[in-house]
Amino acid sequence: MACLGGGHGLYQTLLAARQCDPASISAIVTVADDGGSSGRLRRELDIIPPGDLRMALAALSSRDNNGDLWATTLQHRFGGTGALAGHAVGNLLIAGLTEVMGDMQAALDKVAEVTGSSGRVLPMVNQPLSIEAEVAGLDDDPRVMRPVRGQVAVATTPGQVRRVHLLPDAPQANPRVLQAINEADIITLGPGSWFSSVLPHVLVPQIVDAITRSDALRLLVLNLSAEPGETSGFSVERHLHVLAQHAPNLRVDRVIIDQHMLLAGSDRTHVQRAAAQLGAEVVFEDVCMVTNDGVELNRHDPAKLARVIDSVHGEWVAAR
Amino acid sequence: MACLGGGHGLYQTLLAARQCDPASISAIVTVADDGGSSGRLRRELDIIPPGDLRMALAALSSRDNNGDLWATTLQHRFGGTGALAGHAVGNLLIAGLTEVMGDMQAALDKVAEVTGSSGRVLPMVNQPLSIEAEVAGLDDDPRVMRPVRGQVAVATTPGQVRRVHLLPDAPQANPRVLQAINEADIITLGPGSWFSSVLPHVLVPQIVDAITRSDALRLLVLNLSAEPGETSGFSVERHLHVLAQHAPNLRVDRVIIDQHMLLAGSDRTHVQRAAAQLGAEVVFEDVCMVTNDGVELNRHDPAKLARVIDSVHGEWVAAR
Repeated sequence: MACLGGGHGLYQTLLAARQCDPASISAIVTVADDGGSSGRLRRELDIIPPGDLRMALAALSSRDNNGDLWATTLQHRFGGTGALAGHAVGNLLIAGLTEVMGDMQAALDKVAEVTGSSGRVLPMVNQPLSIEAEVAGLDDDPRVMRPVRGQVAVATTPGQVRRVHLLPDAPQANPRVLQAINEADIITLGPGSWFSSVLPHVLVPQIVDAITRSDALRLLVLNLSAEPGETSGFSVERHLHVLAQHAPNLRVDRVIIDQHMLLAGSDRTHVQRAAAQLGAEVVFEDVCMVTNDGVELNRHDPAKLARVIDSVHGEWVAAR
Repeated sequence: MACLGGGHGLYQTLLAARQCDPASISAIVTVADDGGSSGRLRRELDIIPPGDLRMALAALSSRDNNGDLWATTLQHRFGGTGALAGHAVGNLLIAGLTEVMGDMQAALDKVAEVTGSSGRVLPMVNQPLSIEAEVAGLDDDPRVMRPVRGQVAVATTPGQVRRVHLLPDAPQANPRVLQAINEADIITLGPGSWFSSVLPHVLVPQIVDAITRSDALRLLVLNLSAEPGETSGFSVERHLHVLAQHAPNLRVDRVIIDQHMLLAGSDRTHVQRAAAQLGAEVVFEDVCMVTNDGVELNRHDPAKLARVIDSVHGEWVAAR
C-alpha cells in the first residue's frame, strides 16, 4: 500500500492503512514545508524539511510501549521561549542522523528501526522544494494575479489561490517512490492541505505517470471541509477540478467523500462529473471522526477509513 | 565496575573499562557543567546538563555498525551559525526523552537501549549542580580570595583555585550511584578536569562514604599533565593534596600515574607520601596514548589502562 500526502491528513491515512494490515506500507511525503520547526531546520541546515516525514514515522511506530514512547518523543516539542522552543525532537533527530549518514533516506530508515515502524517513509523527491501560487484578489483589480511563494504564505494568503507550481518545476521523483507506487496494490492520495500537501505530488510528472499507469486500486481521499486560508470557500467539486486542472493526465479509481457533507442531489451530480474527469467514481461513506459527545471533528476516523478502503478494495478485486 | 568522572577523562576510562570485560559497568557522571551545548540546555530547559552523560553513553555504545552509528550521532554537533550551532544531537535527544519520560535516568536507559550499551550511565546526583571556587590572585593583594562561580568560569580563571564547593552544598547522592559503588569490584575515579570533573564526586558525602567503606579495588587515575586554567602549574603531588584536602575521609587503594611523568626520586617520595594520605600506594605505569609518530598525547590509552587495571586487580585479589 502506498499513501501519498503530508501533515495531519497523511497521519490519519497511515493510521487507517495500518488497520488494513497490508503486506507493506510506503508513506510518500511532500517536502515543500517552510514553516515552524521544519522551516527553521530547512533554512539553518539546508535539508529537506523533516516535519511531515517525522509525523509519518510517528503514525507508523509500533503500537507497543517502546513504539508509543518513540512516537511521543518524535512528536514532542520543546517549550519555553529559547532557541529550541517549538522544535520537534524527531525533526532534530532526523536532521542529525541525516548529517551523520549523509543520506536522509538512511536516516529515516534508522529512525524507523528504533520505532519498530510498520512501514517505510519516503520523501516524494530528494531535494527541498518550494511552492509558488498565482493568487488573485490581492489587488484592487481582481483580474491581477500575484505570485505568492512558500508553503506558509500560500496556506495563509487572504487572496484566492488559482494555481500552484513547484520550484524547481517538474522535479525528478525519488526513485524509491516510483518503485513503491509500482509495487502497491492500493494507492491513496490525500486528505490534507490541498495546495501544500496534496497537489505537490501531482506536480511531479513521474509520480502522475506512475499512478496513472498503475493497476492498483487508486483512491483519492477528499478533505472533510474546506480549510481556512488556502481553500476557504472551496466546494467539494472545486477540490476535484483543481486537481484535474493541475494534473490533466492523473487517473484514479475512486474518490472517497464523507457522507456527512450531505450534498444535495444536483451537487452530487456535479461532484460525480468532476470525479469522472479523473476517471473515478465517487464513494460516499461515513469516514469522519466523531467524539463521544457526537461532535464531528475535522479529521478522518482511521477505523472507519480502513473499513471503507477494505470494502472498496474487496468489491474492486471481485469486479475484475 | 564503577567509573566516576566526567568529560573526556571518563570517556577514556570507560573505553578501558570495556576492555577489562567486567560483569557490568556503571558510569557515574558529574552534573555541574554550565558551558556549551550542555549549559545552554541546562538554562533553557532546566535539566541536568546532558553533555557528560552523552559522552559516557557514546563511550559505552556497542562496537557494531549500529552502535558506532549511534555513538557518532550522539556526539555529532550541528554546525553553522544558527540557533542549533554547537548543539550535540545526543544532548537534544536526552533532553527530549527526559521531558517525555519525566525522568532523566529513564531517558539515559532508553538511549542505552538504542546504542546497545555495554553499561549504565548514572548522574552523580539527581539535580543540576554548580561549582563555586575560592580563587586567589585576582586582586593586587594576593591574600584576597574571590568566589568564582560556574564550571566554565572556574576552569578558565586566571587566578589560582584554592578550594571548590558545590551549590547546593553536600547534595544527596543518586541512590543508584551508591548501589553501583556498593556492588562494584573495581572503582575508578578520574582522570579528568580536576576541579570540575573529579572533585565534585568527593564533595558528595554519601559518595565518599560509599567509596571509603567499599571493599572493591579503588583506583585513582591521575591526569597526564596539569591543565591550562584550573590546575596550571599543579604538580602531581598537588593534585593528590587537593583531593585529600577536599575529602579528608576518602580512602583509595592505588593511584595510577603515567610513567612518562618521569619524576625524580625525591618527587616520587613526595607523591607516595601524598598518596598515603588517601591510604593508597602509587603505581607508575605506561598509560599514555602515543601516536604512530611517537607523539605522546594528553589522553589515556584505553588498552594500556585496561592492562594496568587488570594487572593491579589480579595482584590485589591474590594478596588478600
